[in-house]
Amino acid sequence: MQPAGTLLLGQQAVTGTRGEIRAIDPSSGEALEPIYRGGGEFEVARACELAEEAFAGYRESSLEARATFLETVAGEIEALGDALIERAMAETGLPRARLEGECGRTCGQLRLFASVVRAGEWLDVRLDPALPERAPMPRVDLRQRHVALGPVAVFGASNFPLAFSVAGGDTASALAAGCPVVVKAHSAHPGTSELVGRAVQQAVAQCGLPEGVFSVLFGSGKEIGQALVADPRIQAVGFTGSRSGGLALMATAQARPQPIPVYAEMSSINPVFLLPEALATRGAEIAEGFVGSVNMGAGQFCTNPGLVIGVKGAALDAFVAAAGEAVRGSAAQTMLTPGIYAAYGDGVSQLAGEAREIARGPAGEGPHPCQTALFAARGADFLNSEALQAEVFGAASLVIECDDLDQVKAVAEHLEGQLTATLQLDDGDVEAARTLLPVLERKAGRVLANGWPTGVEVCHAMVHGGPFPATSDSRTTSVGSAAIQRFLRPVCYQNLPADLLPEALKDGNPLGVTRLVDGKREA
Amino acid sequence: MQPAGTLLLGQQAVTGTRGEIRAIDPSSGEALEPIYRGGGEFEVARACELAEEAFAGYRESSLEARATFLETVAGEIEALGDALIERAMAETGLPRARLEGECGRTCGQLRLFASVVRAGEWLDVRLDPALPERAPMPRVDLRQRHVALGPVAVFGASNFPLAFSVAGGDTASALAAGCPVVVKAHSAHPGTSELVGRAVQQAVAQCGLPEGVFSVLFGSGKEIGQALVADPRIQAVGFTGSRSGGLALMATAQARPQPIPVYAEMSSINPVFLLPEALATRGAEIAEGFVGSVNMGAGQFCTNPGLVIGVKGAALDAFVAAAGEAVRGSAAQTMLTPGIYAAYGDGVSQLAGEAREIARGPAGEGPHPCQTALFAARGADFLNSEALQAEVFGAASLVIECDDLDQVKAVAEHLEGQLTATLQLDDGDVEAARTLLPVLERKAGRVLANGWPTGVEVCHAMVHGGPFPATSDSRTTSVGSAAIQRFLRPVCYQNLPADLLPEALKDGNPLGVTRLVDGKREA
Repeated sequence: MQPAGTLLLGQQAVTGTRGEIRAIDPSSGEALEPIYRGGGEFEVARACELAEEAFAGYRESSLEARATFLETVAGEIEALGDALIERAMAETGLPRARLEGECGRTCGQLRLFASVVRAGEWLDVRLDPALPERAPMPRVDLRQRHVALGPVAVFGASNFPLAFSVAGGDTASALAAGCPVVVKAHSAHPGTSELVGRAVQQAVAQCGLPEGVFSVLFGSGKEIGQALVADPRIQAVGFTGSRSGGLALMATAQARPQPIPVYAEMSSINPVFLLPEALATRGAEIAEGFVGSVNMGAGQFCTNPGLVIGVKGAALDAFVAAAGEAVRGSAAQTMLTPGIYAAYGDGVSQLAGEAREIARGPAGEGPHPCQTALFAARGADFLNSEALQAEVFGAASLVIECDDLDQVKAVAEHLEGQLTATLQLDDGDVEAARTLLPVLERKAGRVLANGWPTGVEVCHAMVHGGPFPATSDSRTTSVGSAAIQRFLRPVCYQNLPADLLPEALKDGNPLGVTRLVDGKREA
Repeated sequence: MQPAGTLLLGQQAVTGTRGEIRAIDPSSGEALEPIYRGGGEFEVARACELAEEAFAGYRESSLEARATFLETVAGEIEALGDALIERAMAETGLPRARLEGECGRTCGQLRLFASVVRAGEWLDVRLDPALPERAPMPRVDLRQRHVALGPVAVFGASNFPLAFSVAGGDTASALAAGCPVVVKAHSAHPGTSELVGRAVQQAVAQCGLPEGVFSVLFGSGKEIGQALVADPRIQAVGFTGSRSGGLALMATAQARPQPIPVYAEMSSINPVFLLPEALATRGAEIAEGFVGSVNMGAGQFCTNPGLVIGVKGAALDAFVAAAGEAVRGSAAQTMLTPGIYAAYGDGVSQLAGEAREIARGPAGEGPHPCQTALFAARGADFLNSEALQAEVFGAASLVIECDDLDQVKAVAEHLEGQLTATLQLDDGDVEAARTLLPVLERKAGRVLANGWPTGVEVCHAMVHGGPFPATSDSRTTSVGSAAIQRFLRPVCYQNLPADLLPEALKDGNPLGVTRLVDGKREA
């Protein structure tokens, strides 16, 4: 299958009427066929109308039907085969192995949510049986389940053209919750988006679901996204992207007559703390792992380690030297888009103005190479500078040299909210880590020891989230099975006749789900 | 103990420096002693500073210590005895039995949260053990728990001077989550607030907790509340009150450099649907129950049934006649404050301008009597009027006479978000109810059959919440054990050494809490 240059409104493929969008092959700078024309108010309204129509049926689809749908989506994406991988390579400059891995992750994620739907934990069933004899007042029969919020707007991310795009984590978790999805595709990879969108469209038809369960919109500029979030039928928003983009969507969502939740994953510099013993005993090894993590995907990861903090001295100097050496040997990789390439250049220039340059990698070839860059600054400077805390999207990082462990802690306390915080520690560092840990727990959604924040496992215990500005809502995660909770709300049923009770709440537990009965957990 | 007229900043009792606040006895209109002086920026900052200082220790207090603290609070409130009840009677005009009941509810709620803390469901422990042999990539060890958000601002409500005030549901659930609380007391019952505040203060001292776990601020006007929500140390807000008040706090919370969640319970008219067979067979009985619910607490409940919908005809006429008769026999009760009394008068006048008056109760005596009022309007008029959907806080209700069941459904679809929706139905009404139910689930947090929405059970399955504008966040409840979830966020720990893992996540499950292990529930 080759992309045709169309929007997908339910089962229809439609040519837009607004400004043109063309993908650029970032490795060559050449524009790719086909031309996409953006949608406008009509297409936004139509997608939302279809989603609203589909919601009534889809939200009460059986657990099995919904799980099968998610599995069918995964199968249809796999069936796209090499056409998808090649299109994504052309649109992103990412290597084949990475995109094949990401495709596997995307389909695995859909299948994980299928299993989550079937298990039914997300229903959060709670029963408080009637107590007719209770004095002074009898208790009525009360039963709670979770229901889907309504149609969800999902914004594709530039840096994961599959796993955080059209059928990525936000879409998978919203569909799992019973919410129709309207995707605003990222303009950097429209062909990839259309191909994946057609796979989902195909799965909707195969499973006999109402067509409005899924639509894909294209559009350049911010208007179409703002119109989508403002549409009264949309009930929640999933977004991964820049801080300014996320803030704009939050403002639109709050300004609606009925405000809605926005789950925006925005910006994080993912501090890494090098504790003394670890630094002294295996600084060179840590330096190698660090630069590997910085370079992964040309640094275009939300969890890229953009900040390393240690206590100054010979061990930190050796670390910096080793890391600088590794940076100088880091081949430049093609960045995702001309815009990201330009922003990386600006970010590195700003860092260069505030910090000491340690090393740069080779300049690289092609129009959009990411030249790895490592800087250093003193702890006192970091504490007095906002610029040193700004995210630079790409393979750049900053080493903070602190006077002592107290200043390391002060740096931790000075941080904004983060997706991750990493400790490099050995046995002798446990007490230092114990002092830092309460600070890091308040700052980040995930705390790691002796690993690197890049590489986010899709599982049940994952938290890919964190305090503002890492995300707009620290109470949630956008990766892992708990992501489904973002698109649900509780409803309590009081004394409802058995005939009218939803399956999940009927006596005898026909769905076989875990329940909280009178406050006691029944697995 | 008698109230002294002071703010409570941690363990200190402090006299404010701003404008005077005096409670009014609404049954006599007389001002009560003592005079309270409001706090200003200094007191807000001091309370928040203390809360922030207390947070580090309090959030990691053991489950047992925190549960014991909540139980101690309950005991200290009970120890206030009749002094509390009499002060609350004087400040609210509510009868003794109601306040004794509410006191019991408040203490019961604190004890429920003690049991919730001990059970540890709220930790939402999730373990995905390492899979070192997994190909192509091993899985690291990942463990998740929930942690407290941080200091919480709680706004006391006028209509529940105990159960939704200083030590009410918001405070109990925030303290249970591990969050220090700064209360902005409602100016209508400052003495009650101070007495309860001193009971909590006493419990903090008895339990050896950091003093900043709890403070109480007073202040007239909106400034102090806005300053509290804007304070960077506050991380979430609990509010029960008017729509305009809730919206103002939401705007302040969103405008902060770091936006924070606001849980505002604001406005609801709690529609009651009279289905045909129930109406035909027991309309008179329903009318009696309905007027009883309307009059409860002079109608000053968030769940007061302000709207009744039925199909026009002889049965509905008979219901209206019986309800009108009951209204005419409804003795006027004293309203909570002069302001609420005046607003009720305005609301009833507005309804009278848009709808047909069915009956009014006796005018009553004293300065602030609530004269029960019942109106009626046609379904078509309701669908074309915004005024008919406005909440009138007090014992007023509106009967909507629809042409047929389709129009009943149209009325349901036209409703804003609600706390509750009630069905009066008999066996022959089940199909009609089945048609309405999906609409009601989208509109309300709680759906009742053959009961009345007033009377909110404090239990595990309760949802006292609902779509905007009933609340600011439909994903939550402010009554019942799930209310604790509002003040928590997840944190994931990756490969953390055993020594550094929080108790809840340690191998062997030392806390004995329910866990999700590799996606499987272990009770």
